[in-house]
Amino acid sequence: MSEMNRVVAVKADFRTAPDQYRHWSISCDGPVATLAMAVDADSTFADGYELKLNSYDIGVDIELYDAVQRLRFEHPEIRTVVMTSGIDSMFCAGANIRMLGVSSHTHKVNFCKFTNETRNSIEDASNNSGQTYIAALNGTAAGGGYELALATEYLMLIDDGNAAVSLPEVPLLAVLPGTGGLTRVVDKRMVRRDLADVFCTVEEGMKGQRAVDWRLVDEMVPRSRFDERVREKALELAAGSDRPESASGIQLERLERSDEEDEVRYPFLTVSIDRKRRSATLDIQAPDGDAPAGVDEIREQGVHFWPLAMTRAMDDALLHLRFNEPTIGTLIIKTSGDGDRVAAYDTLLDTNRDDWLVREILLYMQRTFKRLDLTSRTTFAFVEPGSCFVGMLADLLFAVDRSYMLDCQLDERPAPMIRLTELNFGALRMSNGLTRLETRFLGDPESLESARSSIGQQHDAQAALQAGLVTFAPDDIDWEDEVRLLLEERASFSPDALTGMEANLRFAGPETLETKIFGRLTAWQNWIFQRPNAVGESGALKLYGTGKRAKYDRGRV
Amino acid sequence: MSEMNRVVAVKADFRTAPDQYRHWSISCDGPVATLAMAVDADSTFADGYELKLNSYDIGVDIELYDAVQRLRFEHPEIRTVVMTSGIDSMFCAGANIRMLGVSSHTHKVNFCKFTNETRNSIEDASNNSGQTYIAALNGTAAGGGYELALATEYLMLIDDGNAAVSLPEVPLLAVLPGTGGLTRVVDKRMVRRDLADVFCTVEEGMKGQRAVDWRLVDEMVPRSRFDERVREKALELAAGSDRPESASGIQLERLERSDEEDEVRYPFLTVSIDRKRRSATLDIQAPDGDAPAGVDEIREQGVHFWPLAMTRAMDDALLHLRFNEPTIGTLIIKTSGDGDRVAAYDTLLDTNRDDWLVREILLYMQRTFKRLDLTSRTTFAFVEPGSCFVGMLADLLFAVDRSYMLDCQLDERPAPMIRLTELNFGALRMSNGLTRLETRFLGDPESLESARSSIGQQHDAQAALQAGLVTFAPDDIDWEDEVRLLLEERASFSPDALTGMEANLRFAGPETLETKIFGRLTAWQNWIFQRPNAVGESGALKLYGTGKRAKYDRGRV
Repeated sequence: MSEMNRVVAVKADFRTAPDQYRHWSISCDGPVATLAMAVDADSTFADGYELKLNSYDIGVDIELYDAVQRLRFEHPEIRTVVMTSGIDSMFCAGANIRMLGVSSHTHKVNFCKFTNETRNSIEDASNNSGQTYIAALNGTAAGGGYELALATEYLMLIDDGNAAVSLPEVPLLAVLPGTGGLTRVVDKRMVRRDLADVFCTVEEGMKGQRAVDWRLVDEMVPRSRFDERVREKALELAAGSDRPESASGIQLERLERSDEEDEVRYPFLTVSIDRKRRSATLDIQAPDGDAPAGVDEIREQGVHFWPLAMTRAMDDALLHLRFNEPTIGTLIIKTSGDGDRVAAYDTLLDTNRDDWLVREILLYMQRTFKRLDLTSRTTFAFVEPGSCFVGMLADLLFAVDRSYMLDCQLDERPAPMIRLTELNFGALRMSNGLTRLETRFLGDPESLESARSSIGQQHDAQAALQAGLVTFAPDDIDWEDEVRLLLEERASFSPDALTGMEANLRFAGPETLETKIFGRLTAWQNWIFQRPNAVGESGALKLYGTGKRAKYDRGRV
Repeated sequence: MSEMNRVVAVKADFRTAPDQYRHWSISCDGPVATLAMAVDADSTFADGYELKLNSYDIGVDIELYDAVQRLRFEHPEIRTVVMTSGIDSMFCAGANIRMLGVSSHTHKVNFCKFTNETRNSIEDASNNSGQTYIAALNGTAAGGGYELALATEYLMLIDDGNAAVSLPEVPLLAVLPGTGGLTRVVDKRMVRRDLADVFCTVEEGMKGQRAVDWRLVDEMVPRSRFDERVREKALELAAGSDRPESASGIQLERLERSDEEDEVRYPFLTVSIDRKRRSATLDIQAPDGDAPAGVDEIREQGVHFWPLAMTRAMDDALLHLRFNEPTIGTLIIKTSGDGDRVAAYDTLLDTNRDDWLVREILLYMQRTFKRLDLTSRTTFAFVEPGSCFVGMLADLLFAVDRSYMLDCQLDERPAPMIRLTELNFGALRMSNGLTRLETRFLGDPESLESARSSIGQQHDAQAALQAGLVTFAPDDIDWEDEVRLLLEERASFSPDALTGMEANLRFAGPETLETKIFGRLTAWQNWIFQRPNAVGESGALKLYGTGKRAKYDRGRV
């Protein structure tokens, strides 16, 4: 059976809101929010499984992602988020195994990636947003449940003789703890590798003092003191936050979107699909008015503030394309509109970067651009007349696999221009911790220096080519043919080989927890998700829950 | 068909010598050696393909590895190695495609790993041994051929209008340039990522000035001046080397080995296979006499000098187990003999580390221990009475996935001891650039400090456990059961899941070119090597050379 036929045929919609949640609840008390998971077993994303024991599928994770976003934007007063369980003696049992068993390879891989990204967004809140997450493990955290807890900065495990933390994937399911678990165990919590080996092969996991001694959790707390101690710790962490005392948040109103077969329209973004060429064009539109005067006006505009509206649209569009359009292999980024307006918004953001809301918007943009980096589709940018690749939008030129800029010598339209701003030199970092220009010019520090000193200048095609800001600059005569050949050629390659190639070329330079998770752990998990020992007829993932024992090919690769 | 049945049923023997080479030749002229590749198309490792156009299989790479080792040990006078081709207009066409098409997944993965390790050993010679490699590309370097060139420090391409460098794997074969190519392009040569994307998707590759401008080669040289300019560059690089002027090398005599069904014996190492438990025990024996007085005596002993003999045996044993015993999933490291003698050899090596030969021996040991780190089998160490885990051998305790030390309270035998030496703190680094103790104690700098201050001290089981040097210390009553259960349990897990888990847990801390190659690139290639788009009946790798066009599943994962 071809893989495409096994795709869970449910369209994923990433828009939700607390009043629609079925699995999570948010409650706020002073500077502390409690994010409680009580999964409704019957409210599944697709058919064929039940979400028992606080296990999750993509539907549960979509709510979590929404909650994390809302806590940041709607609740400036929240400085600590306590993640806990709303059901008895189980914090979270991880990704639902039956769901994994019935999902296509593509869905599994996309699901794991999105889950990882959400966990990174939790770490981003703790590290950069003054909103620290802690895990109040009032029951067992198993598999993906422990991986979720690992995304928080402080793990408190109830000492009731039963509650444990575990990563039972290898012994039980013949797959990896693939949503960051292995990397976070040895690289974030820095658990000694031999102890990590033991931990990851013991089905029942660890509890009690050993879990603390091995650095798997930070603290064991007796049942009688659990709530009190969690509150105490939450308040202690809240005290160190730089979030404002009395600001009011902005409401993340439902994202507008019009869906048609081959076109999805958002405010400031149109996605057009060309099924023949298996490509989608993301046309980002410049602001339709002048930038607000200052932070008060930004707050008033809320989700309609252009940088935020554009980022939300792009975030949703990328997730939509990943989950719902798996055969669209090439994404083309275009921009249109007034570059001066983009520049004005750039300046506004840069000038007010210390404001809590502006900081949130920039961090969200950073996470969304990272999502583009991590999208396993070929990405191109076309710089054409009428475009506005300025500052934050220019950064997309350095995110894509290649960029083409029209050299307008014979064209009558005004030549397209590229302009760099301060935002290209620090605010928008990749997973590797570098800016996109730093990564681009790893071997060429002089070009990086020149780029910096060209802030504010207009680059036409020849200047941009000379400065190394674009890949090619065809002229009017060649443009159309070149673009056509480019798209046809790309569409003729093996999607798998492109995925592997792009994942290896995009992240030169230093590695971080994030690049290890996406570059290494994900690749191994992708491999294992294909292996008969996991997903074959007698594989462990397939047979889980049937009472039958998996049969393994014993050859080591 | 099960994978095991598709294994190329040829036993790999890694022992060879220049007078047996069929594909490579070494010639020396002053401080410069020329290593020329002229592959004999008919001398293949297995049946079913011909090695046309200087393409290679594992047999060709075994000779290359041998040549690299000999140049270091036998030729202290050689300061530059020119790698070139002995045939017309083709430097090297890379791994033979037909060979890949008929090989099992296991063989392909092992082949790529060994090939990568050999390339790392070339870089090790250039970086640490005063023996710099340059590539004299007197013809096209395609695919693995260009990857081989990338392992050198300076690439000179003949300017004859034809010769090009290329990585055509993605467009042509639907697999990755998987022997380090992608990583070396963006991380070693720091080619701009968009240019790398173009380069890796253009079948015919790049030539002329563009190849220089894009940093793909360092220099283009006209045909008429090629030999002269190569010699000039080689001598220029030779001038900066610290290798001795007039020392004489030691002969790498043929490694002694006795093969039986379940036992392989080398000087100072016995490998015993337990097929029921799918495990092999590597018992390393201490020196059988006192350490030599100094470097002159070391030179006289040559390959019989214990650290070198032990390292050679271990190197060969690991390769043998990887290639010829794929179902042996667990390797158990033991040692036996007089620990004081090991300590004396440790001191001798440490005292004379500036001597060129001692440096070579230590670097070889470092590479061999890395080979253990990179072996995709579970590794355990058992510390029992009569063992000698001292210094360099103690490092193996920190290389393995877990270590068990017998707590001899009730045993009448003398309790086993562990002793650290200077060699545990710098001479033997992992692929991540850290010592094994630094990696072990990444989250616990105090334990690292304590370990350092305990140099020379004996640790019994309780002390070793306390110091974090071993994983567990069962007593006499529990030992046998615990070991039995451990091996049975490990043998019951999915080999694939263990491979993925171990690859993720072993290399915490910083990443390097090497860890990226083995951790990321290899994982992606493993995945792609499994995908129908490459290896299915209509996959590109399967259909190559048949004139038929591959059919791809267009879903992106």
